[in-house]
Amino acid sequence: MTNMNHQIILAARPDGLPKETDFKLLEAPVPKLGERQFLVKNIYLSVDPYMRGRISEIKSYAEPVAVGDVMVGGTVGRVVQSKHPDYKQGDVVVGYSGWQEYAVSDGTEMQRFDTSLAPMSTALGVLGMPGMTAYFGLLEIGQPKPGETVFISGAAGAVGSLVGQIAKIQGCRVVGSAGSDEKVNWLVKDLGFDAAFNYKETNDYDAKLREVCPEGIDVYFDNVGGKLTDAVFLHINEKARVAICGQIDQYNATRPPRGPRFLWHLIVKRARVEGFLVFDFADRYSEGQQQMSQWITAGKIKYRETVVDGLENAPKAFIGLFSGENTGKQLVRLAED
Amino acid sequence: MTNMNHQIILAARPDGLPKETDFKLLEAPVPKLGERQFLVKNIYLSVDPYMRGRISEIKSYAEPVAVGDVMVGGTVGRVVQSKHPDYKQGDVVVGYSGWQEYAVSDGTEMQRFDTSLAPMSTALGVLGMPGMTAYFGLLEIGQPKPGETVFISGAAGAVGSLVGQIAKIQGCRVVGSAGSDEKVNWLVKDLGFDAAFNYKETNDYDAKLREVCPEGIDVYFDNVGGKLTDAVFLHINEKARVAICGQIDQYNATRPPRGPRFLWHLIVKRARVEGFLVFDFADRYSEGQQQMSQWITAGKIKYRETVVDGLENAPKAFIGLFSGENTGKQLVRLAED
Repeated sequence: MTNMNHQIILAARPDGLPKETDFKLLEAPVPKLGERQFLVKNIYLSVDPYMRGRISEIKSYAEPVAVGDVMVGGTVGRVVQSKHPDYKQGDVVVGYSGWQEYAVSDGTEMQRFDTSLAPMSTALGVLGMPGMTAYFGLLEIGQPKPGETVFISGAAGAVGSLVGQIAKIQGCRVVGSAGSDEKVNWLVKDLGFDAAFNYKETNDYDAKLREVCPEGIDVYFDNVGGKLTDAVFLHINEKARVAICGQIDQYNATRPPRGPRFLWHLIVKRARVEGFLVFDFADRYSEGQQQMSQWITAGKIKYRETVVDGLENAPKAFIGLFSGENTGKQLVRLAED
Repeated sequence: MTNMNHQIILAARPDGLPKETDFKLLEAPVPKLGERQFLVKNIYLSVDPYMRGRISEIKSYAEPVAVGDVMVGGTVGRVVQSKHPDYKQGDVVVGYSGWQEYAVSDGTEMQRFDTSLAPMSTALGVLGMPGMTAYFGLLEIGQPKPGETVFISGAAGAVGSLVGQIAKIQGCRVVGSAGSDEKVNWLVKDLGFDAAFNYKETNDYDAKLREVCPEGIDVYFDNVGGKLTDAVFLHINEKARVAICGQIDQYNATRPPRGPRFLWHLIVKRARVEGFLVFDFADRYSEGQQQMSQWITAGKIKYRETVVDGLENAPKAFIGLFSGENTGKQLVRLAED
């Protein structure tokens, strides 16, 4: 095997939308294994909107990635060498190794993944962070009840596409917005959404929401923020729950974004808005994974992956998230398994 | 007794801050009693910030007051004449008779008030709508835990001054903002707030909040909205609860108010923002009244009333709420009891 590891580091702190030159591909020796360590060859890495926050200089729920550090991110791969008694060559493991081909681990923050359940790529998608985000975010924060209307922004993304299907399983009317007609078709024809619209071809969100959610919105699962979310607040019903999962429309803002104040509207509707992070549900992931696996097996949950090949294309795949290049989960494949 | 009833009607829909000329004093005959009806002579009427919403043309949780209608509002008074078997002359009753001296009722939406518990004016304050708003809003929406920091905007108002004292009873550190040094002194010296500041003499809310809430804010009880609330969102802790009770800073806006977007911040902090109306807790008022009565008797809850005499002064008292003329509950006394 090779002795060289390829890595992508953060080369500069992005100003606004990240550029490919904010990242840099480096070559470094594969680290030597110590006792109770093992070497993982990453097969897939995940690019996700949350990473924009991690490379901003503002501390949020975690310290920012320093310029010069390997980019953070979820990975799935195979153990190729082991001095750890519990891990052997060929084991499939999921973790946060970041944007690099090889990583050394002692097993902390690594989980084994059972590929008899589903392909290993799902460890980063429907059975991984996006899947758990959809599952716990909708059920615990959104608390949908049968017959209610659930509206999802970014509905064709890795999280949104699962939220809609879980909401259908709960007996809800499900409506979403997405950024292309192809995505809208996928939501309605393949995933069973009751309605969807292309927000890029909609000038009047208010009129469109009245059309697609004539009985108002009981649960809003927001991945996007901005003007679409402003409009949604005018359509929420009494006792509505708004789950703030992401604000992708805002992540690249170069000046503090401003918008209409809506708190008075929360009083009138006695509505609740709650932000969440999937990590808060970490002790219940196995419950979520089991349920999602069952639904996949039963044909009730479908998922799509957008796969780009080559570590060197990770920055481009990441940047593409902000213009909606992906449908479903965006992955970067580093090697054939 | 007199045969004439004095009433204040809404004469014009206010544009921005209401003016006294938006209201008009009229004289009308006292209605004759039908069977199972009684006549109430109102002793106190309540003026409250929520009434600004009721006289705006926008339908919120209730239909707006029509121009020409008697102004809505809570009242407490005595039965002076009765053809109802359950009500006799001298009974003290609380209801929503509006801004007028006399009202006829069949008992629906009227409650009897026991003046052996507390003076009748408290039926519109600490044991009435403001008291129940404070009690259920803080405990059910804010959910304070011992040792947490509770921050209250509009802390010297009818609701805020009670919220702070209830939070102290819960073992919280309590901080508030108010609009004069006299109010700030009252909060800290008489009501036991741990800190308070005069927002009218504070240019930098951010620095002030860092000073008075050095460990951040776990529960924010918001009566005010606007720039102060913008600043508070930057000081909330993880898993903070924000109870939106009022937005008095916004009620007279003549164009749609805009402000910094903060939803991303709710994700980072996994925080919750919830609007509420006291009416949602109507089936638990007796619980709230009993507890508040006990606390008053035990000296744990103090209250203050700002009383203006004369029905004709009700518009002025109402308008004064928006510049903070009142400390504690603002009442209008229509007659000696």
